Amino acid sequence: MAFGWIDEQAELRRRAGLVRTLRPRAAESALLDLASNDYLGLARHPEVTEGAARAARTWGGGSTGSRLVTGSTELHAELEGELADFCGFEAALVFSSGYAANLAVVTALAPHGSLIVSDAGNHASLIDGCRLARGTTQVAAHADPDAVRKALGGHEGPAVAVSDTVFSVDGDAAPLTGLAEACREHGAGLVLDDAHGLGVLGDGGRGAPHAAGLAGADDVVVTVTLSKSLGGQGGAVLGPSRVIGHQDNAARTFIFDTGLAPAAAGAALAALRLLRREPARAARAGEVARELHTRLTAAGLEAVRPDAAVVSVRAPSPEQAVRWAADCRAAGLSVGCFRPPSVPDGVSRLRLTARADLSGAEIERAVQVIGETRP
Amino acid sequence: MAFGWIDEQAELRRRAGLVRTLRPRAAESALLDLASNDYLGLARHPEVTEGAARAARTWGGGSTGSRLVTGSTELHAELEGELADFCGFEAALVFSSGYAANLAVVTALAPHGSLIVSDAGNHASLIDGCRLARGTTQVAAHADPDAVRKALGGHEGPAVAVSDTVFSVDGDAAPLTGLAEACREHGAGLVLDDAHGLGVLGDGGRGAPHAAGLAGADDVVVTVTLSKSLGGQGGAVLGPSRVIGHQDNAARTFIFDTGLAPAAAGAALAALRLLRREPARAARAGEVARELHTRLTAAGLEAVRPDAAVVSVRAPSPEQAVRWAADCRAAGLSVGCFRPPSVPDGVSRLRLTARADLSGAEIERAVQVIGETRP
Ligand SMILES: Cc1ncc(COP(=O)(O)O)c(C=O)c1O
Ligand SMILES: Cc1ncc(COP(=O)(O)O)c(C=O)c1O
Repeated sequence: MAFGWIDEQAELRRRAGLVRTLRPRAAESALLDLASNDYLGLARHPEVTEGAARAARTWGGGSTGSRLVTGSTELHAELEGELADFCGFEAALVFSSGYAANLAVVTALAPHGSLIVSDAGNHASLIDGCRLARGTTQVAAHADPDAVRKALGGHEGPAVAVSDTVFSVDGDAAPLTGLAEACREHGAGLVLDDAHGLGVLGDGGRGAPHAAGLAGADDVVVTVTLSKSLGGQGGAVLGPSRVIGHQDNAARTFIFDTGLAPAAAGAALAALRLLRREPARAARAGEVARELHTRLTAAGLEAVRPDAAVVSVRAPSPEQAVRWAADCRAAGLSVGCFRPPSVPDGVSRLRLTARADLSGAEIERAVQVIGETRP
Repeated sequence: MAFGWIDEQAELRRRAGLVRTLRPRAAESALLDLASNDYLGLARHPEVTEGAARAARTWGGGSTGSRLVTGSTELHAELEGELADFCGFEAALVFSSGYAANLAVVTALAPHGSLIVSDAGNHASLIDGCRLARGTTQVAAHADPDAVRKALGGHEGPAVAVSDTVFSVDGDAAPLTGLAEACREHGAGLVLDDAHGLGVLGDGGRGAPHAAGLAGADDVVVTVTLSKSLGGQGGAVLGPSRVIGHQDNAARTFIFDTGLAPAAAGAALAALRLLRREPARAARAGEVARELHTRLTAAGLEAVRPDAAVVSVRAPSPEQAVRWAADCRAAGLSVGCFRPPSVPDGVSRLRLTARADLSGAEIERAVQVIGETRP
């Protein structure tokens, strides 16, 4: 039978304890959420949801076409202008997802004959971008500017180094200054995915590239997502106008994809304006993460020191990670659980996300539950 | 300089008349729209925009995480249930875009050692899916079941044939019955992208696979988009439960992408319910397309007979296509303009989309403007 082979894979997955199942959530939940990427606690903020609702009413339920045909509204242009300005870049282009933005930027900036040097810990969307690109990819050791330098050294012609700014699994930061130096020595471009940095790192949440003094540089291009700190959906590419204009013309996930829905653009724009008005939210997310880490470590758990708002706690095995997360849930705490194949190193972990709006009591309760349910 | 090579490409594009520029639109426009993919005229229907607004208020501006972590709400599950039921499939899975759904289905159903037979006229997202998949791709002649049969004949192991149901550029339909026969002879699966069929073809808009008697078959998987007839954003994969469960577990653009924003799901769900209640909208879109075609042909223009709601009109050159579309716009009519590299055959054309809510007078005006501005 056509798809019979799937049953064998499902059985293997079942035996390895790796089956994933969807658990649709209700609108209101008594669970304490340390699993979402809603770092600033804005996804359900009335200004953000009203921004979404108003945009839908004004512009429609969808954008109705590719950005190059009917899918660009003045709302998209407004969001692009304010995002670029906030993060310190000349121009921005909004996509239907962060995933699409990453596919776009890597494929459009790595033509035939070019080299991509990609960090071993990069997000799936950057990896898929490398695989789709016409250029050749070399994987560099994780967070290692010398490895990037060495890879670039052996190449003639256009080259880019590509890295998450904050790695999604362990929440560790990339050595941005070192990466920029390595790229500049070789005239290579630097492409940074700031999905987990925007809203958390940098002055008022302007992101990791801004914090590293790289915002607005003519050899740096940044992608962000609107689905985490900004509480919406979508992604964006930020950079010099020449690079942004090139995305319009060369990125397949821009040209052949329907523009972002107005409501998602409206939500992100409202969140961005709120963050501008209340910049302390950004620093607070980082503080919560560091406090979580300190307390987890004090409780004897193996947690990675967070550079942004993601706190990763190691689990002994996939099965135990799943059971641990389930036990947390039974005790009223929602945590992420990352297992193969979602982890580059095969190590399963709980993944906790700090939110700027977590109270001291909530942090304490979370740490207590995680400690009590440890395998 | 790092991105200096882009300037050369931009210059080449400029000289070839292929530069694309974004033209953000206002919320209210006097232009007659024959460019959007809003086939049923639902994107701005009050029920649809209210569906979006209500979902944002109830569930938030974004879904806050991957569908496997916090990004699945009961709203997503509801939409999946109703979509599967409407189109006649066992199960459905919703993605952040139709593009992401296509990447998912092709990569997840074409493992190492498998064969993908892909129609030469397929959409960019299916092509990118083929390029990302571990299986080997063979491109088959456009709309040619014998070519598919021949390609499948030479292969042992899992295989799928992949095709748009309605091709996005020329609006012609794929020979679904012939494709299904060719696949069944070889035990291969059939993957159909019904982006331009859903809402327009089949009983009450149930889509091209439903019309061809293929809905619910255990060897057929269909992708749809929520961004065209359903007036929202997002995509879905429909098929047997085993295949849908496999997407949950194996599709990278499902696992590593934030779930669709609630507002987009709410918009699509409202549109789906409206279509169920007013099934005549579907047939009307097709009628409008055929009327457009008849009148354009009578006016001496070279238009492709539409099988759904897309009407393609040939232009002599990219420059003339661009000028033609601009002249239409100056005369109050918005039409699509497809040029290289967005067209598989290098032929530039105007792309008109029929909408169920176009009046006879609007159709007449559109044809008149197109005729008067022809190069
Ligand atoms: C590092 C990173 N980049 C990109 C993405 C993709 O963004 P989105 O979910 O908005 O498509 C994610 C997460 O989903 C991510 O963690
Ligand atoms: C045939 C086809 N498939 C898939 C897509 C992608 O869907 P979406 O724009 O919702 O991502 C489109 C158009 O955008 C399309 O025309």
